[in-house]
Amino acid sequence: MKKAVILVSGGLDSATVLAIAQAAGYTCYAVSFDYGQRHSAELEAARQVAARAKVEEHRIVSIDLSQFGGSALTDESIDVPDANTSEDAIPITYVPARNTVFLSLALAWSEVLGACDIFVGVNAVDYSGYPDCRPEFIRAYENMANLATRAGVEEQQLTVHAPLIDLTKAQIVQQGNELGVDYSLTVSCYQADATGAACGVCDSCFLRREGFANAGIADPTRYQ
Amino acid sequence: MKKAVILVSGGLDSATVLAIAQAAGYTCYAVSFDYGQRHSAELEAARQVAARAKVEEHRIVSIDLSQFGGSALTDESIDVPDANTSEDAIPITYVPARNTVFLSLALAWSEVLGACDIFVGVNAVDYSGYPDCRPEFIRAYENMANLATRAGVEEQQLTVHAPLIDLTKAQIVQQGNELGVDYSLTVSCYQADATGAACGVCDSCFLRREGFANAGIADPTRYQ
Repeated sequence: MKKAVILVSGGLDSATVLAIAQAAGYTCYAVSFDYGQRHSAELEAARQVAARAKVEEHRIVSIDLSQFGGSALTDESIDVPDANTSEDAIPITYVPARNTVFLSLALAWSEVLGACDIFVGVNAVDYSGYPDCRPEFIRAYENMANLATRAGVEEQQLTVHAPLIDLTKAQIVQQGNELGVDYSLTVSCYQADATGAACGVCDSCFLRREGFANAGIADPTRYQ
Repeated sequence: MKKAVILVSGGLDSATVLAIAQAAGYTCYAVSFDYGQRHSAELEAARQVAARAKVEEHRIVSIDLSQFGGSALTDESIDVPDANTSEDAIPITYVPARNTVFLSLALAWSEVLGACDIFVGVNAVDYSGYPDCRPEFIRAYENMANLATRAGVEEQQLTVHAPLIDLTKAQIVQQGNELGVDYSLTVSCYQADATGAACGVCDSCFLRREGFANAGIADPTRYQ
């Protein structure tokens, strides 16, 4: 069985990606990040998602991005805005270089594991407008990763899979539902409380709620 | 004055790069990494190099790459080999994805600082054969970084400078010497002792010693 490293955030998208990688026959190694995010409910959700999927191993890597700040998700002094209230192209919930940092740590682990496949749940349709969720970023990252590592010298091919990138949130929910993902374990909210209950008003809650509604699937989210 | 983030390891190369960036007129922000390396003498050297250069700010970021292992530099159970004893294309001192991880954290900080320039001391001539020291890696990283961040949306241009990439170690030492770099502060050895004294036999010591010899400059390295 081929090994793959899966970025698992505790949210809806990455839980779906994990199910997709398992259905494709990969032995899955899940990695999550304790990065100074606002709430720990996200990491607890990641633990539950990884455990339910019976992954080969689940690592939680500590990397404090709050030391750089610059985002409502890592700086307590910046409020998380309600959905669709920002005029800016890039909202204040964007965490600078977050996906680049996360993919790079996943890359380090994959190289040691001898895994040639990394799965990430980025999405460029129903998303918050972050630059590091676009298809051109993923392609450029994969190209760089193949030059950065042993793969570039030993003529292996490292692939960064982003199976959700062109899907709507409704399509993601439908696909996960067919694969048996238990979305009640997942937390998408940018400011969930300690129990994982969602605010219902942030951009991420808005997209998630719309996704279930458009998919015609009951929304298992617990709201505050 | 334009801001730049400089990766400062405590070694000879990055001390030279810092001097080059300052001579070019940048306001310099130094970043070093406590990544589970064998010895802390390297970080102490980085502190001294950054302090001597009077950088605007020096951050030491903790990211434990030893949790992944796979390298003599992060796994105590793997011995550091003597210079030129390895038959492999990639030696055991290679730390998987290290430069990718370090550049990604530098990228996160630079984005928050509003800096469009990152300087890194990689070198592809007198080096240990690491894939993430090659010019094609740096170009691919820069391309990716411009898509990963605000720069890609707001039409700024982010540049990853690797001013040493085509230089021999002797040329690096000559250039640093002209810029007044105090190499006695730097530690290059893969297994320096707690005081920063070098082993004299590892690949990095070999390259450094040859560099000073070929440059005709007195070697200030303290050996064990």
